[in-house]
Amino acid sequence: MLATILHGPGDVRYGHVEEPEILKPTDAIIKLSATCICGSDLWPYRGLQPMAGPARMGHEYCGVVVAVGSEVRTVKPGQFVVGSFCLSDNTCPHCQFGFQSSCVQREFMSGAQAPYARVPLADGTLVPTAVMPSDDLIPSLLAVSDVLGTGWYAADAARVQPGATVVVVGDGAVGLMGVLAAKQMGAGRIIAMSRHKQRQELALEYGATDIVTERGDAGVAQVRALTNGIGADSVLECVGTQESMQQAIRSARPGAMIGYVGVPHGVELDGQSLFFSQTGMLGGPAPVRRFLPHLMDLVLSRTINPGKVFDLDLPLADVAEGYRAMDERRAIKTLLRV
Amino acid sequence: MLATILHGPGDVRYGHVEEPEILKPTDAIIKLSATCICGSDLWPYRGLQPMAGPARMGHEYCGVVVAVGSEVRTVKPGQFVVGSFCLSDNTCPHCQFGFQSSCVQREFMSGAQAPYARVPLADGTLVPTAVMPSDDLIPSLLAVSDVLGTGWYAADAARVQPGATVVVVGDGAVGLMGVLAAKQMGAGRIIAMSRHKQRQELALEYGATDIVTERGDAGVAQVRALTNGIGADSVLECVGTQESMQQAIRSARPGAMIGYVGVPHGVELDGQSLFFSQTGMLGGPAPVRRFLPHLMDLVLSRTINPGKVFDLDLPLADVAEGYRAMDERRAIKTLLRV
Repeated sequence: MLATILHGPGDVRYGHVEEPEILKPTDAIIKLSATCICGSDLWPYRGLQPMAGPARMGHEYCGVVVAVGSEVRTVKPGQFVVGSFCLSDNTCPHCQFGFQSSCVQREFMSGAQAPYARVPLADGTLVPTAVMPSDDLIPSLLAVSDVLGTGWYAADAARVQPGATVVVVGDGAVGLMGVLAAKQMGAGRIIAMSRHKQRQELALEYGATDIVTERGDAGVAQVRALTNGIGADSVLECVGTQESMQQAIRSARPGAMIGYVGVPHGVELDGQSLFFSQTGMLGGPAPVRRFLPHLMDLVLSRTINPGKVFDLDLPLADVAEGYRAMDERRAIKTLLRV
Repeated sequence: MLATILHGPGDVRYGHVEEPEILKPTDAIIKLSATCICGSDLWPYRGLQPMAGPARMGHEYCGVVVAVGSEVRTVKPGQFVVGSFCLSDNTCPHCQFGFQSSCVQREFMSGAQAPYARVPLADGTLVPTAVMPSDDLIPSLLAVSDVLGTGWYAADAARVQPGATVVVVGDGAVGLMGVLAAKQMGAGRIIAMSRHKQRQELALEYGATDIVTERGDAGVAQVRALTNGIGADSVLECVGTQESMQQAIRSARPGAMIGYVGVPHGVELDGQSLFFSQTGMLGGPAPVRRFLPHLMDLVLSRTINPGKVFDLDLPLADVAEGYRAMDERRAIKTLLRV
């Protein structure tokens, strides 16, 4: 079949690969309903993350099961399923604590920017719907797989409470999903840090009450001004750079939690500064599996519309243009139609 | 009067100082019932923290009010009081959120290793007892002021839950109080990391269920073995070095919280490692004021006996010997009788 391969920085191709097969009795094969490009795919695309060689890309997925291994019990061919980008058995102690992204059997999904994909640990990873969802819900169900689940985890880790003041650092797709999550959790004030008009508009639509366009000292001053000098109760860090992490820390009031979900690249934290600022922190790869049933319900009941974060819709064959558009920030997030 | 002055590393003297006076209308003057030496006093004593010149020492205190400024409303001469080492107004937004150690008017107590001391922000800082406590309760009431309050905050920040598995890194007085706090909060298993027999015994008395004497890789392996390879739900970091912080992080299961209360000296944290380990962290100077009423009740009802952490009892005039004994680890914590 034809699928997406990153050959090196800036070099994405839609080329021939082997069809996926059941390799282990716990595997499933799915036919993707749609897939997409993640902000984290841009790290290697931009040459900011070392690559061992050409790599199959894609870890966000939803679709219909076409085959299952002999030990798979909870999903069957013909069912529509959504899974997390982190594959997990959902039974180990870490899974039981709700941290499926640290499952003892954890693998990261790969090769999902393709018509078909193998999903290891199918029983633990995949959640089926009761009926086949409407086509118009596919983008939102796809979003649950990573970008919404990750924004949701940021808000959960930042312990957003009803009425709370929340700052969201980063106006990429995850940041926008963080705004949506904070709104759903009842935040009273949601300050989105964004310099891009289109993203600001989507942030406002998802529930942001204030937009801060400044960064650095000016951005911190603006957050302080908006919070009577106190700082935010919860901060969602959705970028992963030293600058964005400092922005998050300096936006937080003492005792606040920062939920950080941007994979840190070059982030160093000074223990004594963190200590005296009394900044709480919890981050990591999102345990999307914990949230999947709830988030799928919210989508299926049309309570939320996370799929709107896809502002570019391309056939999978045009995946290279999808990467370019996101790299050049012409698109927030690219949906790929299979 | 005669009081404690640190002239330079290793040079503690009991010498003449001015009697404290009301300087602001929000001040109180107390006659100390007892005072003590803090582990943090050893940082400058050991030359590990720069000093601007000779310094009045002591920030842990309880005693009887002898004078108050014109604006003080909630305490009056003749009352027995306990206060936090962090002075706070207890009304600002940070205080209202329970982070009095980041009060907008915060000052750190000083000069308490003395017969009399000035307590700024008396209304916000001091909590009086209904009646004059028995003499035998004085050590425990003094402990509330910092060492117990700090250990308690470590357990609170680490979100110790009933039935939880807790690791306490550090067998100093704060670590031992952390054991006591975890026990009071209902922890099911409390693993104390300690290499000193006397401290191990006190840890066991305060509620530790297991003692780990190893450090570094061996210590981590031991914690893993005791927790079926999972790691702890909550970790209390009560030292403040890079080594102890790494011990704490490596003892935690994914999603666990570390409550860190040892003032970090040279601690640097790698963002990406913290991210992938999914270690939650909250630390800082303890907001003891938040816990004061509850902890004083536990002492007055003789539910807890934190005063047992004082294993050396000296007249204030012998304060230099008190520092030496703690520096040489001959004493866990020195009580100074006024």
